[in-house]
Amino acid sequence: MKPTITAFETSPDEGQGHARDMRIRWALEEVNQPYAVRLLSFVALKQPPHLALNPFGSIPTFEQDGVTLFESGAILLHIAERYPGLLPPNAENRAPAITWIFAALNTVEPPIVEREATMVLEKDESWYWDRLPMLDDRVRARLFALSASLGEAEWLIESFSAADLMMVTVLRRLLASNSSDGPKLLGEFPTLQAYVARGEARPAYQRAFAAQRAVYEAAVRCPAT
Amino acid sequence: MKPTITAFETSPDEGQGHARDMRIRWALEEVNQPYAVRLLSFVALKQPPHLALNPFGSIPTFEQDGVTLFESGAILLHIAERYPGLLPPNAENRAPAITWIFAALNTVEPPIVEREATMVLEKDESWYWDRLPMLDDRVRARLFALSASLGEAEWLIESFSAADLMMVTVLRRLLASNSSDGPKLLGEFPTLQAYVARGEARPAYQRAFAAQRAVYEAAVRCPAT
Repeated sequence: MKPTITAFETSPDEGQGHARDMRIRWALEEVNQPYAVRLLSFVALKQPPHLALNPFGSIPTFEQDGVTLFESGAILLHIAERYPGLLPPNAENRAPAITWIFAALNTVEPPIVEREATMVLEKDESWYWDRLPMLDDRVRARLFALSASLGEAEWLIESFSAADLMMVTVLRRLLASNSSDGPKLLGEFPTLQAYVARGEARPAYQRAFAAQRAVYEAAVRCPAT
Repeated sequence: MKPTITAFETSPDEGQGHARDMRIRWALEEVNQPYAVRLLSFVALKQPPHLALNPFGSIPTFEQDGVTLFESGAILLHIAERYPGLLPPNAENRAPAITWIFAALNTVEPPIVEREATMVLEKDESWYWDRLPMLDDRVRARLFALSASLGEAEWLIESFSAADLMMVTVLRRLLASNSSDGPKLLGEFPTLQAYVARGEARPAYQRAFAAQRAVYEAAVRCPAT
């Protein structure tokens, strides 16, 4: 049976590919696995049928052959372990690739998401402009370390892997339209800018991007009644 | 060869077990694997020999038989996959256990760490008291969902697993002495308070806690010259 994932019926990012279903769509495209998508309204996300799949009421979830998962990191790892092509075949590079998935999610993403949440939720607060440089610096520290580590390499581990897929989607959040000056922040690190562009150039990325974009465009054309 | 992990020479938490080496110590104690510890000063963390192991300059790292890892989540998963006892033996519970490791790190931990960082870095700022209730509510939303999901169960998946080990250490950060009112926040969820206590009662937890505590006490007794 092909897997079923969940995604926003109307994504808050307006089809820019920043919602976390993009990670799973991209992974499934990389391994050429067709999938079904169940779209959810913001109301449905917080109702019992979806909470039974993900107690935190977020997307994406993943269902296949009796296995139900949530958390984009766990789903990506599951796909990478089940299908060839997303993890290095040799054991000594496999563990480092998994390390980088965790680094993307637990070291690089949190300050980016914190900065983005502040931009959305606190932009009218009196302290907003005083705090912003501090949030920028927290992101910058992670980008600096990542950029130094990547160096001249094309990908984090020998060849493209799930680690790059996750890291590129995390870095792309800086390009979101609600991440004011995020593109400028990423632009301070040309190594990372080129790395993101390499990810975006992959045919599997482009198919995944088009698929999530089509969902948003359909929702705008034909709003749910 | 037994693995070598890194830890703070003088932990900022003063031996309360909140530094992330605790997770790895606990995991290795659960599987009865002896390990060596290399202690690092704050200066050494940011110098080339350690940055070669972890480009973000943090602890813990893990080295064994030519494999070098960083990120506590990746190290925990590596140990859990290498030794029996930390992941359910049956495949249908294995993937959900891994899902919960990611949920602990990417959904529950970020708002707890954000709240804690604010308490340390922004407590003298004019906006501190205005922002705090918002940060509390973000943590509360995660604790509410987790508590509802755990319900009457003893552990997240059938029996104790790496998911509980990670989740308990994440929740314990609320008990840190720099997390003012953190204990009160956790106390709003008696289900989670009891869950943390069950984790802390495990003999492997207690051995790991004593080991990290001893490091801090030795550092205080005999400061590095």
